[in-house]
Amino acid sequence: MAFKTPEEYIESIAGIKPRIFIAGKRIDDVTRHPNTRPGIDAVAKTYELALDPEHEELMTATSHLTSQKISRWNYVPRSIDDLVKRRQMNLLMSQTVGVCWPRCAGTQSLQVLESVTYAMHQKLGTEYNKRFNDYLRYIQENDLSANAVQTDAKGDRTKRPLNYDDPDLSVHVVERSDDGIIVRGAKVGPENPFAVHELIVFPPVMPLIKGEENYAVCFAIPAGTQGITYVCQSGPMEAERREAEDIGTLGSPVYGTAVSVLYVFDDVFVPWERVFMCGEIEFAEDLLTKFESIMNPLCACGCKVGFMDLIIGAAQTIAEYNGVAGAAHIRDKLTEMIRVRESLDVCGMAAVQNAKEDPSGSGVYFPDIMPGLMGNLICHYDLPQSILMAADVAGGSVVTYPSELELRNPETSQYVERFLRGVASVPTEDRMRMLKFLQHWTAGQETVRIWHGTYPPATTRLILYRQAEGSLEEKKKLAKKLAGIKES
Amino acid sequence: MAFKTPEEYIESIAGIKPRIFIAGKRIDDVTRHPNTRPGIDAVAKTYELALDPEHEELMTATSHLTSQKISRWNYVPRSIDDLVKRRQMNLLMSQTVGVCWPRCAGTQSLQVLESVTYAMHQKLGTEYNKRFNDYLRYIQENDLSANAVQTDAKGDRTKRPLNYDDPDLSVHVVERSDDGIIVRGAKVGPENPFAVHELIVFPPVMPLIKGEENYAVCFAIPAGTQGITYVCQSGPMEAERREAEDIGTLGSPVYGTAVSVLYVFDDVFVPWERVFMCGEIEFAEDLLTKFESIMNPLCACGCKVGFMDLIIGAAQTIAEYNGVAGAAHIRDKLTEMIRVRESLDVCGMAAVQNAKEDPSGSGVYFPDIMPGLMGNLICHYDLPQSILMAADVAGGSVVTYPSELELRNPETSQYVERFLRGVASVPTEDRMRMLKFLQHWTAGQETVRIWHGTYPPATTRLILYRQAEGSLEEKKKLAKKLAGIKES
Amino acid sequence: MAFKTPEEYIESIAGIKPRIFIAGKRIDDVTRHPNTRPGIDAVAKTYELALDPEHEELMTATSHLTSQKISRWNYVPRSIDDLVKRRQMNLLMSQTVGVCWPRCAGTQSLQVLESVTYAMHQKLGTEYNKRFNDYLRYIQENDLSANAVQTDAKGDRTKRPLNYDDPDLSVHVVERSDDGIIVRGAKVGPENPFAVHELIVFPPVMPLIKGEENYAVCFAIPAGTQGITYVCQSGPMEAERREAEDIGTLGSPVYGTAVSVLYVFDDVFVPWERVFMCGEIEFAEDLLTKFESIMNPLCACGCKVGFMDLIIGAAQTIAEYNGVAGAAHIRDKLTEMIRVRESLDVCGMAAVQNAKEDPSGSGVYFPDIMPGLMGNLICHYDLPQSILMAADVAGGSVVTYPSELELRNPETSQYVERFLRGVASVPTEDRMRMLKFLQHWTAGQETVRIWHGTYPPATTRLILYRQAEGSLEEKKKLAKKLAGIKES
Amino acid sequence: MAFKTPEEYIESIAGIKPRIFIAGKRIDDVTRHPNTRPGIDAVAKTYELALDPEHEELMTATSHLTSQKISRWNYVPRSIDDLVKRRQMNLLMSQTVGVCWPRCAGTQSLQVLESVTYAMHQKLGTEYNKRFNDYLRYIQENDLSANAVQTDAKGDRTKRPLNYDDPDLSVHVVERSDDGIIVRGAKVGPENPFAVHELIVFPPVMPLIKGEENYAVCFAIPAGTQGITYVCQSGPMEAERREAEDIGTLGSPVYGTAVSVLYVFDDVFVPWERVFMCGEIEFAEDLLTKFESIMNPLCACGCKVGFMDLIIGAAQTIAEYNGVAGAAHIRDKLTEMIRVRESLDVCGMAAVQNAKEDPSGSGVYFPDIMPGLMGNLICHYDLPQSILMAADVAGGSVVTYPSELELRNPETSQYVERFLRGVASVPTEDRMRMLKFLQHWTAGQETVRIWHGTYPPATTRLILYRQAEGSLEEKKKLAKKLAGIKES
Repeated sequence: MAFKTPEEYIESIAGIKPRIFIAGKRIDDVTRHPNTRPGIDAVAKTYELALDPEHEELMTATSHLTSQKISRWNYVPRSIDDLVKRRQMNLLMSQTVGVCWPRCAGTQSLQVLESVTYAMHQKLGTEYNKRFNDYLRYIQENDLSANAVQTDAKGDRTKRPLNYDDPDLSVHVVERSDDGIIVRGAKVGPENPFAVHELIVFPPVMPLIKGEENYAVCFAIPAGTQGITYVCQSGPMEAERREAEDIGTLGSPVYGTAVSVLYVFDDVFVPWERVFMCGEIEFAEDLLTKFESIMNPLCACGCKVGFMDLIIGAAQTIAEYNGVAGAAHIRDKLTEMIRVRESLDVCGMAAVQNAKEDPSGSGVYFPDIMPGLMGNLICHYDLPQSILMAADVAGGSVVTYPSELELRNPETSQYVERFLRGVASVPTEDRMRMLKFLQHWTAGQETVRIWHGTYPPATTRLILYRQAEGSLEEKKKLAKKLAGIKES
Repeated sequence: MAFKTPEEYIESIAGIKPRIFIAGKRIDDVTRHPNTRPGIDAVAKTYELALDPEHEELMTATSHLTSQKISRWNYVPRSIDDLVKRRQMNLLMSQTVGVCWPRCAGTQSLQVLESVTYAMHQKLGTEYNKRFNDYLRYIQENDLSANAVQTDAKGDRTKRPLNYDDPDLSVHVVERSDDGIIVRGAKVGPENPFAVHELIVFPPVMPLIKGEENYAVCFAIPAGTQGITYVCQSGPMEAERREAEDIGTLGSPVYGTAVSVLYVFDDVFVPWERVFMCGEIEFAEDLLTKFESIMNPLCACGCKVGFMDLIIGAAQTIAEYNGVAGAAHIRDKLTEMIRVRESLDVCGMAAVQNAKEDPSGSGVYFPDIMPGLMGNLICHYDLPQSILMAADVAGGSVVTYPSELELRNPETSQYVERFLRGVASVPTEDRMRMLKFLQHWTAGQETVRIWHGTYPPATTRLILYRQAEGSLEEKKKLAKKLAGIKES
Repeated sequence: MAFKTPEEYIESIAGIKPRIFIAGKRIDDVTRHPNTRPGIDAVAKTYELALDPEHEELMTATSHLTSQKISRWNYVPRSIDDLVKRRQMNLLMSQTVGVCWPRCAGTQSLQVLESVTYAMHQKLGTEYNKRFNDYLRYIQENDLSANAVQTDAKGDRTKRPLNYDDPDLSVHVVERSDDGIIVRGAKVGPENPFAVHELIVFPPVMPLIKGEENYAVCFAIPAGTQGITYVCQSGPMEAERREAEDIGTLGSPVYGTAVSVLYVFDDVFVPWERVFMCGEIEFAEDLLTKFESIMNPLCACGCKVGFMDLIIGAAQTIAEYNGVAGAAHIRDKLTEMIRVRESLDVCGMAAVQNAKEDPSGSGVYFPDIMPGLMGNLICHYDLPQSILMAADVAGGSVVTYPSELELRNPETSQYVERFLRGVASVPTEDRMRMLKFLQHWTAGQETVRIWHGTYPPATTRLILYRQAEGSLEEKKKLAKKLAGIKES
Repeated sequence: MAFKTPEEYIESIAGIKPRIFIAGKRIDDVTRHPNTRPGIDAVAKTYELALDPEHEELMTATSHLTSQKISRWNYVPRSIDDLVKRRQMNLLMSQTVGVCWPRCAGTQSLQVLESVTYAMHQKLGTEYNKRFNDYLRYIQENDLSANAVQTDAKGDRTKRPLNYDDPDLSVHVVERSDDGIIVRGAKVGPENPFAVHELIVFPPVMPLIKGEENYAVCFAIPAGTQGITYVCQSGPMEAERREAEDIGTLGSPVYGTAVSVLYVFDDVFVPWERVFMCGEIEFAEDLLTKFESIMNPLCACGCKVGFMDLIIGAAQTIAEYNGVAGAAHIRDKLTEMIRVRESLDVCGMAAVQNAKEDPSGSGVYFPDIMPGLMGNLICHYDLPQSILMAADVAGGSVVTYPSELELRNPETSQYVERFLRGVASVPTEDRMRMLKFLQHWTAGQETVRIWHGTYPPATTRLILYRQAEGSLEEKKKLAKKLAGIKES
């Protein structure tokens, strides 16, 4: 196969032309619009790194289907070492772009599908696994990027597919023919679909029950397919970027923030060769459980470790710019931030180092679930505190700073230059940029995004209890024995 | 005197014409610019409430100088009941506008100056108190609004006025004449000066030492005085507002967010009758200590209580819109948020109920410092967690929502209308507005602002230790006695 | 009336001769047994302080029944100032004896009964209030001590009186006659009944329902009445005290630890004049609610403040003995302990300063419930951490120390003298005693006792939510208004 | 070699006859004294498990010196798998005996010495490694138990060996001869030396400096050597055990609590073949650092995981006995306790799975230091909270229970039997024993012991910062790059 260069990737994305809207307006060219270009540049980085000899070993792998060298983003981990590298790849990317990129979830979905379609093949004799492997070979050989589309809108959480007021609240099959299926409905969430070639659409994130067979559908589809509409999030940070003439004045200048999307599938045709589940409700939960076990090690304790590197680095930098790096309470805060970073890293490492082979026999490896759950909870409870500590280290300026544009305005530049300076040796512009970078992390959408990026804490605690429930009897026995209580 | 109507107030503000910049551009009319109008509307609310019979008792008081009915914002508390009302006034305003308003700090500075100028009069026989009372009468009679300007830029925190590389990093006297003084230098922080008639400028927030007499300067000045330049903060929320054609699409539609400012005084003349301290370094610390004791009860445990009411109300509303208000973990979170709200309220109440008369004999009452310190720390450690809980209750949509503009776009409106709905009984627009309101609180500058709005935690803990240090000997005695150790 | 001297009090207690057991053996003379004497000495302190001119104002009051000067422990608060003094009295006692004393709960029960019997009188025309006032006069005039007996054993918490397997699991009426009632059943908990003259027995700590009328019984009874048996707790600290020949070697030498008790009422006769409720299930909950509002301000945020004084004093002392009082992390811990102490104090103050008169018209004052709930939660979540911090400040020796007896053993004394010394200026004995005192607080039953001394956190949070639930609608309205949502 | 049976081990211990004191009295036979027997029974368990076919693989290993099968407690880990097993061995023991046992530290000291004596051999050409291997072979072949003696009394922490008022505050060399050295001084801490055959004595726990060569001494010595005196801790739990006629009434009936000791070396002769360091101050720190890296994974995240199993098992049992196991808040607490248990386990696993070979070339493997530091901090901050939660689940009875002796006292047995029962199906004795077991964990010395069992938090945070300090520059670079700041 031929690896795409970043330029070739961008060109291929420019050719897709999806029907996509932001802030009430249609976007014509996603590679030129200020709100979509940053996400594309982040994915372009994955192509660039694959061609960089320094990172080649991490960013590429050998396909088990074709024995060709391929992008690791299109590779399915088949050993502990593969998972270790997969996690390091996430760490490298998150340190480099400082933002979510859709290929991460895409890779997870390839891994999950390889395993679950194999299990269906074993138990039901279906063709899904064969189809999926053909599809996998196709995206490997063409070096394509994919995103996973999973979450439902769930506006009214008392309802489920069976009793939705509006059946289209999640994607479902509305027609089957010899050639394929027609699907309809909405999904929300997964960021930056405009930066990938392919969407892989999953059933709702809940166990399905009898009567919900039409929702148990999983398929891949080119991102620009007729009938798909995207409505992008638009909040303060998106508005600020639209206004900016010079991205240098922004807090995350090049790679921006992730843009979540409402996906609408309005009677979209999917040929059978791209359908990987269609009605097998009993396997829909298997998809979920597999995702659970990968997502935490790679996301909560993977890319978040890289984000913490950036936040720690920024806090240390601003402390130096403000002349307080040596103060005891500043060092305490740095130590606490380091503790959170390292704790996440430990959980991520343990999850992949204790990975086990898929019992279905697919040859795919999945991380140990427990360390990932631990990391997920650190991510919820401790990481937001670390972010606040970075704001505390930076001081109030982190939210009260004037725009860097004032440095270019002759009427205000000398005031800003003189009065917003930190230690004499650092240019005011550098200090303003570092404050703006910290504003991006501490006073924007990042904290809440991190909180919601994986399973929420209440769900995580529930999964944790269920995982550990089986061991309670053994623990009771140990305690009773030491307490001198005879087992009856 | 005649109370100003809101309209008269706005007209008077429109007449000021300060030299003011935002995002690299000059603002012509602060009453019309999208970034300055909301702050003016918030102050206008203080005028409106004073004329509202329902709130008259809280919002007005009787001047001890003229025995006239005046705005309580221009009144100096002379009893415990005055302080109780002063705090309730803040609570009412924060519940009503949901944002800081400059008159709050202005009122605090009047109280502090009445006391400290009186002490100077007692000890040094200066005229400051007489001048200040004349000034106080002037703003009472004209129903003017004032703001306190106190914080310095402190870019390099290893320096103090005596060894600043650039002496203008804080405001200082550069010339004295028979008529008055000329001041020069910068200040940062206090929000929305474009919404007040008067600035009251204070010395740096640190004890001053010999050689820093020129920095020990305190004075009042009309906000539009020649030589003053304002450079406003500009971040994502300011940009979003500038772009918005309909403020209804914003998270805090009417009263917006507070706009912090860099103040530059470029050789500004202040007549003696408006100078309330000039060189008395030994009284500069007194100003600080007095501020400390008022600010926490009124700000950390005053307006923050009102903010918590809004956040709790919003979290409960969105929980109902999402159909999850009855879930145990949601109720747990609400309970925790209520705990934080009530804990702050308790600290505020205790601070004002235990107020003491100023020992200098000025007749001014100051809150007990200890409960305010407790509240300040709750504000730092627990309030941000409550805000995150609101985001957790709301779900990821709080950051990933499309703009309400999509509801008006015929190409997307029906999708958004159907798929972003919550429980059937609530219009999608209502749900989107409540999510946007929560986005404002949870994914913008508010958390960090709350963190930095009062003394930072490290400083607060230091003040706390110093306050309690004197009681350690007594506590040691109690412990030794019970431990059976003879005092040597 | 004549106040009892401490000696007269002890003599009167010695005359009671209850049927009481500990560690499997009968106690003959509670004034001489090592496990019961400390609790008696603690109550004796309340008599001593009443006669001490320095504390007279706090420890005595004027009876509203007789206009005589009486012990404040037998007084019912009839103003805010009374409650302020009542709380200060608790603070003084807890600082002085460092342990719970039964008269505290006794006083609370007098206050509750005055109010609830009055309400019954108003609504039902019963004689309970008249009887209670006669009883109150009796204990005021004889300067007697009382304890409240309230908690049930509740071994199986799925059951309530109506469906108890064994009806005697709580005290209930088994016979009524012209002279009085016969009661039977068990209670647990309230400490040191052997140190009081009178028990005041309450219904179960839960709202009662129809069919449970026999459990809705409240009465006073002399502690030595025929048919009552007491079984005392006995754990490590009780054993250590029994072994000790010299109480100076113990961690709380004079006043020891509180001894909880299983109370058994085996067909005990109570004359009608001592019965204050008998069957009025609808008023049983009123007793509870009233207790709730007093207990937190006086206990969680009353005596616990005094305990914190002792723990802070001890931590500071041992830090000095160890030569580390100046270390930054030690000072941080002290600051945090001070924060917890002051936060509790603030809640206690606010609760009594916002007290309201009983709406039934009894003239009794009850604290504001909300601040007490806040304090209770601080008591549960933060106080145990402070205790651990004291252990951290002291170092591992706090649990690993040899007995002070080694200082008197010629074979080991010089080793211990030399090697367990701290800074040279402090005798080793003093250091050992302070470590032992801290062992008492940090490695014994105190932390768990504090945790369980008031309503447990789950109950407290439930009460809190119920208290605040009514305000949610108002808060929703405020939020909706600011969010731009029209009320439908 | 021949493995000792538990009986042979106890017999060999009975033959040692150390000079040992507790509570002011000499102990004649440590195998019969109530305070020393439990610790001996715990070590006996290590001998029993080694002979148990079920645990043989874990409890034994093949000596790299003799290729004989030996106890793993006398084995030095030479691979990652060895460390994994070493940690599992600790987990098994802690679940089985529920208390510290001295052989754990003994094994750690063998590992550290093998490595450090090898490094001394490499750099200095000393004979220490040869001597140590002879010694190691000796204890392997005779299946002996050893304890590490490391901590100093450090009463006055402003002093260090060079300026001790009393040079004997730590063990030091006072004489050298051809045959060996004479040592003098004190040590404190390591538990239950009466249960081992050998002490291995280490230099002070701090880097040593020039002039302190005599303190840089490390040697092994039979526990009963002439000149050694032991003074045991004695607190409430030791007193309770001395009083108990039936250990069944105690909270940790068989294996008791750990007994810390003051060790006095009064001119004790050590022959050269047992001296492993003597004056090499530059290697004393190496000993420390090596200990740091082993202790956390094996202790903080090793045996504490087993303790958490016991505490969780006990909490679940008592919840069932009280009929509340299904309540939401109880399940929440169990989930939190499980979280802490699993988090510690994750840290322990990651530490040993990322172990590295000793760079000196000794062939010994050492765990990764970072995960252990993370676990240590969980152990300090979260484990005490979990213990309190167990007390919260159990209810107040956990401290207020009468002795089980009341069940055997005919005067009280039926009361206790009836009124302290939980759910009907569980005998009252079982409930009392489980409450007593929980009393042992929640209201005794265990929490503070756990807090102090490894490096205290302030030290751990310092080590953490130092470990991470080197990576700050790299993190700054990443942040600056993303912020758009050019590296100067």
